[in-house]
Amino acid sequence: MQEQIYHLQFAMDTFYFLMCGVLVMWMAAGFSMLEAGLVRAKNTTEILTKNVALYSIACIMYLVCGYYFMYDGGIFLQGIAEIDVDATLASFAEQDDFTGDAVYSGASDFFFQVVFVATAMSIVSGAVAERMKLWAFLAFAVVMTGFIYPMQGGWTWGGKAVFGLYELGDLGFSDFAGSGIVHMAGAAAALAGVILLGARKGKYTKDGKINAIPGANMPLAALGTLILWMGWFGFNGGSVLKLGDIGNAHSVALVFLNTNAAAAAGAVAALITSVVLFRKADLTMALNGALAGLVAITAEPSTPTPLQATIFGAIAGVIVVGAILSLDKIKIDDPVGAISVHGVVGFFGLMLVPITNSDSTFSGQIIGALTIFTWVFVTSFIVWYALKLIVGIRVSEEAEYEGVDSSECGIEAYPEFVASVK
Amino acid sequence: MQEQIYHLQFAMDTFYFLMCGVLVMWMAAGFSMLEAGLVRAKNTTEILTKNVALYSIACIMYLVCGYYFMYDGGIFLQGIAEIDVDATLASFAEQDDFTGDAVYSGASDFFFQVVFVATAMSIVSGAVAERMKLWAFLAFAVVMTGFIYPMQGGWTWGGKAVFGLYELGDLGFSDFAGSGIVHMAGAAAALAGVILLGARKGKYTKDGKINAIPGANMPLAALGTLILWMGWFGFNGGSVLKLGDIGNAHSVALVFLNTNAAAAAGAVAALITSVVLFRKADLTMALNGALAGLVAITAEPSTPTPLQATIFGAIAGVIVVGAILSLDKIKIDDPVGAISVHGVVGFFGLMLVPITNSDSTFSGQIIGALTIFTWVFVTSFIVWYALKLIVGIRVSEEAEYEGVDSSECGIEAYPEFVASVK
Amino acid sequence: MQEQIYHLQFAMDTFYFLMCGVLVMWMAAGFSMLEAGLVRAKNTTEILTKNVALYSIACIMYLVCGYYFMYDGGIFLQGIAEIDVDATLASFAEQDDFTGDAVYSGASDFFFQVVFVATAMSIVSGAVAERMKLWAFLAFAVVMTGFIYPMQGGWTWGGKAVFGLYELGDLGFSDFAGSGIVHMAGAAAALAGVILLGARKGKYTKDGKINAIPGANMPLAALGTLILWMGWFGFNGGSVLKLGDIGNAHSVALVFLNTNAAAAAGAVAALITSVVLFRKADLTMALNGALAGLVAITAEPSTPTPLQATIFGAIAGVIVVGAILSLDKIKIDDPVGAISVHGVVGFFGLMLVPITNSDSTFSGQIIGALTIFTWVFVTSFIVWYALKLIVGIRVSEEAEYEGVDSSECGIEAYPEFVASVK
Repeated sequence: MQEQIYHLQFAMDTFYFLMCGVLVMWMAAGFSMLEAGLVRAKNTTEILTKNVALYSIACIMYLVCGYYFMYDGGIFLQGIAEIDVDATLASFAEQDDFTGDAVYSGASDFFFQVVFVATAMSIVSGAVAERMKLWAFLAFAVVMTGFIYPMQGGWTWGGKAVFGLYELGDLGFSDFAGSGIVHMAGAAAALAGVILLGARKGKYTKDGKINAIPGANMPLAALGTLILWMGWFGFNGGSVLKLGDIGNAHSVALVFLNTNAAAAAGAVAALITSVVLFRKADLTMALNGALAGLVAITAEPSTPTPLQATIFGAIAGVIVVGAILSLDKIKIDDPVGAISVHGVVGFFGLMLVPITNSDSTFSGQIIGALTIFTWVFVTSFIVWYALKLIVGIRVSEEAEYEGVDSSECGIEAYPEFVASVK
Repeated sequence: MQEQIYHLQFAMDTFYFLMCGVLVMWMAAGFSMLEAGLVRAKNTTEILTKNVALYSIACIMYLVCGYYFMYDGGIFLQGIAEIDVDATLASFAEQDDFTGDAVYSGASDFFFQVVFVATAMSIVSGAVAERMKLWAFLAFAVVMTGFIYPMQGGWTWGGKAVFGLYELGDLGFSDFAGSGIVHMAGAAAALAGVILLGARKGKYTKDGKINAIPGANMPLAALGTLILWMGWFGFNGGSVLKLGDIGNAHSVALVFLNTNAAAAAGAVAALITSVVLFRKADLTMALNGALAGLVAITAEPSTPTPLQATIFGAIAGVIVVGAILSLDKIKIDDPVGAISVHGVVGFFGLMLVPITNSDSTFSGQIIGALTIFTWVFVTSFIVWYALKLIVGIRVSEEAEYEGVDSSECGIEAYPEFVASVK
Repeated sequence: MQEQIYHLQFAMDTFYFLMCGVLVMWMAAGFSMLEAGLVRAKNTTEILTKNVALYSIACIMYLVCGYYFMYDGGIFLQGIAEIDVDATLASFAEQDDFTGDAVYSGASDFFFQVVFVATAMSIVSGAVAERMKLWAFLAFAVVMTGFIYPMQGGWTWGGKAVFGLYELGDLGFSDFAGSGIVHMAGAAAALAGVILLGARKGKYTKDGKINAIPGANMPLAALGTLILWMGWFGFNGGSVLKLGDIGNAHSVALVFLNTNAAAAAGAVAALITSVVLFRKADLTMALNGALAGLVAITAEPSTPTPLQATIFGAIAGVIVVGAILSLDKIKIDDPVGAISVHGVVGFFGLMLVPITNSDSTFSGQIIGALTIFTWVFVTSFIVWYALKLIVGIRVSEEAEYEGVDSSECGIEAYPEFVASVK
């Protein structure tokens, strides 16, 4: 019977990982719809193509070498198709504690990890939308998902020393589900690209005016945000890494509850902020507020009370509105607000951790944030710069004016609808 | 080993709650897309804003006070972040029966409950669409989710006496997953609002004609319905409240099967009814028919056979078409048919329960329905009326003509598409 | 305690089926959005109506008689509402092996099976889009889901002899989750319909030119594909049929991983192929490539390594582009590419099985594929032909020109948007 119990716990923890992984995979649709809703009609097919392709590239590259760089797992996951049931049962028996670390299928672990890589890369596509060459972007995706992300993932979740110099865990760095490791990392790569790429034509005029460029399809933007909200339960909930005992199951439940509370508070706070500032209930700010709440709680969703999670989310909702306005003032053109949502709020999320988790320290969080940001920003800048020199990263002025759907994909997103404005 | 088995059952029942809760949360996207599809383009951003905001407000208000009013749970869920594993194990050991009530994380219970509140409120937004002020609506959402819904939820699922006078459970009232407690309650609040608000301009002309006002985006309406259909498996399936033994697991499975069967039959029956009446296969009727099947089976999905569920759903599909046409005749203007789907069919669902569940009585069902309807309708009417006096609930004629997206949100939903009709 | 363990395993395996079934049900939304995105605006409401109705009809017909034809289950699932807990416990005790076949709720089995029938039928709607009469299509759906599909399902998954003559299992036929039984079967029914129906007006001109008819809404097409991708985890993952021991849980995890890898590789391969052939990154090809990867791995996702799954998916992505171009050359007009994705690649998937699964043989796979194809194609042809004689299957020329939304449904999909092209 003891063995049967081990069988059940293994199955439960594996299934929990898989269900959470499916929810994170679903975030690919969330980013796709959010970005398709926030760009102009003429650039919609291309952003969809980028999103489908980057997810696919992430899956391939992480299999080919990314997982290896992050966790020293075997190249190509050789051997993962097999499992030794007796050895697995023995590894249960060796543990002192039924409530300790989980024993689960390595295939479920890879599946859960790989969808995180895609999330980080999805953040980039929105920020560089409407003017970046498709193939330059996809080339960057290869390097980002196969090397840049896994390296810093190895230093954090992988427990490796940073260039053999220092270990972030020893310094009190903690990032539960990736406010920094996934979201700020994605934003750092995006920022490097945006700086090299420049703003969209017409966004900032010579006399210092900032022109709003409205997205073409608000229902898609709202749908994308709600998909991300749903997927985030898997993103944060799965990061407990074990379900199968009372303490861990409760932790998973609390993470779900706090994740939801932070998102709700972020949406409301950003909506109120938009009304105070603009006298209008700005839907896009509410959506970004919800996402900001989600990003902020991601670094530590398991120790705050629901009330704390609500407060953290609300602050994030205010911060993100300020960040979006501030980036526009310094002419960082980010069509979907991704750098504000994932970068600025990602950093904020890291800073919240020591408030409720005594195992982390502010100094550790700052050093960790600096390490991740510096690594991803510098390497990304180098790759973007090399791409700029070799193939160019920006489409021609004519292609930008006509829309990249036509020049890059040859397919209009809404061939029968578009009436007027290019 | 006995303790290990308790650990596993706790984890399983908690996870089951969480997965079902995620599906119900997803219904927020369903309502958003359904309503965005059925309103005109000029009112789409606003209905999306309302939907995102009402879900968020529901999450905050239920945390702040709603859960307390419904179940006497601690304000702000103080203490829910902690769990005492030994005490939890002891509560298992005290039970006579492994197949009895579930022991699960309180955090998972709150998560599952809070998404129900949001569902009830989502029903309101569709019925008052295209002419209600955003902030009046959100103010109502605060009262509805923090007080009106929780009070009647306490009298039913909370097991409290109605104003200390009578207990619905003693009278043979039974509402498994909320045909009355969630759906009819939401419709009652909506009806009060619609009566005070009046019909949209141009809906009913002086010579007695009823003008159809077609929705702007049928794919979104269909998507929203399919999302709701999917989410309903969590809504009804989670309401078994326990998964972790043979009897309960079978019950959950039967609920899934019956929920699906009722929806399918409702869609087909409504489609056929529309062809008989209009000589056209009316997609919106088929969608409302599916939703009607879902609402009807919600009061008792665990005792009918699949064939009974199919028949119940089919009848609901016919009823909802009749209800939509009848409400239009008495000039109750409900742009998405929410009062018919959730109110009329919600009541019908309550009446079906005694047919297959011998623990309930027709008199109990009627008294319960009257209690819920009267409480929600009267209190809602008072709140809507107070809002009407203080801030007004209807937008200006000009705003209604131009579309509330412009006046309330300052963002068009489809800035590049709209060609002609306002 | 032994009984408690059986309770938990039963609950776990039942819940696993239900969650996978929900994901497959969700594929109905995937097909709906994919097809709504790939047809023209004037035919969108009708394709949505067909999709909602066919799913509903499949659920009803499989309940009424389909499940009976396939598995000899009782008509109308009489008795499925009840469960005998003691007998269930006894059936556990009789098994030699805790890691053997699963014992789970019959209701969960039906739920998982019924959504597969709907998937097969969903394949048909896309291929015959934009010119088939709604009611002829729905009449075919009744026969397909109630009889044609279940018969061949009985010969394969049901283990029955083909017309009492030969048993496919004995010949070494293996189709894990239905590359042939679901996907190729759906495509065979579609092919018969398309042949009798003919091409859309204007698709092929007399001088031999092939006109591209672009879909009206690319975001919907991308969303549909990502929904299908998500749902496929349930489709393939649930087909392991058991979760609750170490070996099976690992198998489920590997299936998730391989399913994802094949889809990713298919998308990238098809995208690259489109660039090589057309000098443009064709989003619709990338989407069909992802689906092709999914269809190809479906016949055996549990034995390949992730690297093999990636390679299989990539080949499928190339094949599907070739198949789409080839079918156009022979004037088989399939607006969404369903026959290529599900038929051609479905057959390819069957042929891949013996490479990694030594229990299957190439001869068995070919005989099985021929059996399924012949049965479904011939019976479908007869039914389509009878419908053609009796009620007609093609809409009038005028209806086709004006769009079937108007003639069949009386509701435009986007009444405010469409600017120019009919």
